[in-house]
Amino acid sequence: MNERARLERAMRTAIALSESARGWTSPNPPVGAVILDEKGVVAGQGATQPPGGPHAEVVALRHAGLRALGGTAVVTLEPCAHHGRTPPCADALVAAGVRAVHYAVADPGPVAGGGAKALHAAGVEAEGGLLAGEVEAGPLRAWLHYARTGRPHVTWKYAATLDGRAAAADGTSRWISCPESRTEVHAVRAKADAIVVGTGTVRADDPALTARTPGGHQADHQPLRVVVGTGTVPDGARVLDAVAPTAMLRTRDPDVVLAELAERGAVDVLLEGGPRLAGGFAAAGRIDRILAFVAPALLGAGPTALGDAGVSTITEAHRWAVEGVTMSGKDVRISAVPARAGEE
Amino acid sequence: MNERARLERAMRTAIALSESARGWTSPNPPVGAVILDEKGVVAGQGATQPPGGPHAEVVALRHAGLRALGGTAVVTLEPCAHHGRTPPCADALVAAGVRAVHYAVADPGPVAGGGAKALHAAGVEAEGGLLAGEVEAGPLRAWLHYARTGRPHVTWKYAATLDGRAAAADGTSRWISCPESRTEVHAVRAKADAIVVGTGTVRADDPALTARTPGGHQADHQPLRVVVGTGTVPDGARVLDAVAPTAMLRTRDPDVVLAELAERGAVDVLLEGGPRLAGGFAAAGRIDRILAFVAPALLGAGPTALGDAGVSTITEAHRWAVEGVTMSGKDVRISAVPARAGEE
Repeated sequence: MNERARLERAMRTAIALSESARGWTSPNPPVGAVILDEKGVVAGQGATQPPGGPHAEVVALRHAGLRALGGTAVVTLEPCAHHGRTPPCADALVAAGVRAVHYAVADPGPVAGGGAKALHAAGVEAEGGLLAGEVEAGPLRAWLHYARTGRPHVTWKYAATLDGRAAAADGTSRWISCPESRTEVHAVRAKADAIVVGTGTVRADDPALTARTPGGHQADHQPLRVVVGTGTVPDGARVLDAVAPTAMLRTRDPDVVLAELAERGAVDVLLEGGPRLAGGFAAAGRIDRILAFVAPALLGAGPTALGDAGVSTITEAHRWAVEGVTMSGKDVRISAVPARAGEE
Repeated sequence: MNERARLERAMRTAIALSESARGWTSPNPPVGAVILDEKGVVAGQGATQPPGGPHAEVVALRHAGLRALGGTAVVTLEPCAHHGRTPPCADALVAAGVRAVHYAVADPGPVAGGGAKALHAAGVEAEGGLLAGEVEAGPLRAWLHYARTGRPHVTWKYAATLDGRAAAADGTSRWISCPESRTEVHAVRAKADAIVVGTGTVRADDPALTARTPGGHQADHQPLRVVVGTGTVPDGARVLDAVAPTAMLRTRDPDVVLAELAERGAVDVLLEGGPRLAGGFAAAGRIDRILAFVAPALLGAGPTALGDAGVSTITEAHRWAVEGVTMSGKDVRISAVPARAGEE
């Protein structure tokens, strides 16, 4: 195997490690790292531990031990160069005697960035860009958005029929989407830091908003449940149970909600409803990704998934770009991101 | 090449011929036929000609001439055995000295069917089923529906945004879908026998309802334009121009509309709007296929593609099965057929 192929294979392992850490690391990035020894053989691997614990590089270096000497580190994010709750990873790599570092994405942060420069200064080769696209659209998507904008990344998830209804005329919606789609939603929740709904959804559907396994058990990681708006929430509402923490924010202003969530360390936020809340986020340009489960069903009446989004005529439509379409059981699963200027 | 592979290749050619005849043959089926000579080499091919003209087998036999003797006919539909406007194809195949006939789909009609029996009686091997699924879901789909039910096949085509809107709050809808999707709609129209809209759509959008080529010219085949309902149609409406014939039916009852269209020889009908008309057809179970172009855009307000379809609660939803999802330019193109009982 040539050098390039060896590095790409190591990076794919690092990406899988990165993905495995999602949900546990915020506000730190879920990073994955692989240490190759002098001969290019995997000597250690690691993922970011929960806040206060070691970063991915340090876990992988501990795993590699002396085999890191003269070896190569393959990391999904540029190693940090600052003293936070843990010492800089760049220093740890230098101290372990690593010869070269290949990372996917540069750290956009003014504080943690500069790791490549620090490595260079210590005589360690450091190069970015390896499988950068996969990492940016993959495990570090939310964190990179947060690092660049200061706002948590918002995924608007909804289920609707082919004709755009989120519920029937009488308000019933169980179940519009198929079991496979509902299972995926729980897996997405188990990776998110927070789930946001409006008081109206709590009153109408009384959702638990927990992440459950296909077997019906509570997932190991539960996102913060966030109920926004000024409506009342009944005392016995399921979101108030003890399974996961719940925050009540008496506002629907997307920027106020997101600032509050950032304050609480949330990086990856799932917006689940209802139409009025989603419309407000869309109008404010605060939806960063759409995850739609379109069920092959027709209702012909009932509420739509999205309410007023500040659009009155077709030229004002919010334009998106589809990044992926797959079948999810019987449903069509569509993932979309905002269309870039000029692509509309 | 073995016998089976040779027959399948010939059937794929016959399917392409079948498809090429769509739009020109109703109420006859658009059939494709290939004649292989004694050695299995293609000797002739043909497609159904417009009503009154020869059927596919006869065109292919004329093309093959004496080379049909001892050869094999490969046909998308069981050859007819009755005297209509033209003599029976089964007789023509026997007369040409064909040794065997392979067809995809049996003729379900009580009148034309029986071709295989007639061939057997004349000592010609006749076998059905070759690539039957491709033919049933492909060029003969509409005609087979018509032959089995007596009703034209209805494709409901619509374009909507991800959030299910067919137009913005002010009624503007040009353009929700991308150029590639609009081009496909014109190609679909050029294969249809009739396009149906309500008087409301004519008043709101003043559509031409013609089939145009990507270059902007009128397509060679124009479907019958059908305006249904009791509303008024302005004198200068574009559907009243001379480009294609237009029928006005003063009813919205799907079965009355379809009976009238069957009377006029229509087999393949395209239902284009608006929401009230589509809702009526959906409620009556008279939509046989959905062709949806979902644009990655959000509007948050405006009319939905489907109006009242007789559904008041989720358990009454009309359930469909997705048969294909592809990208059409920037849009998601979804084709769906009614879910069979037990599959819902």
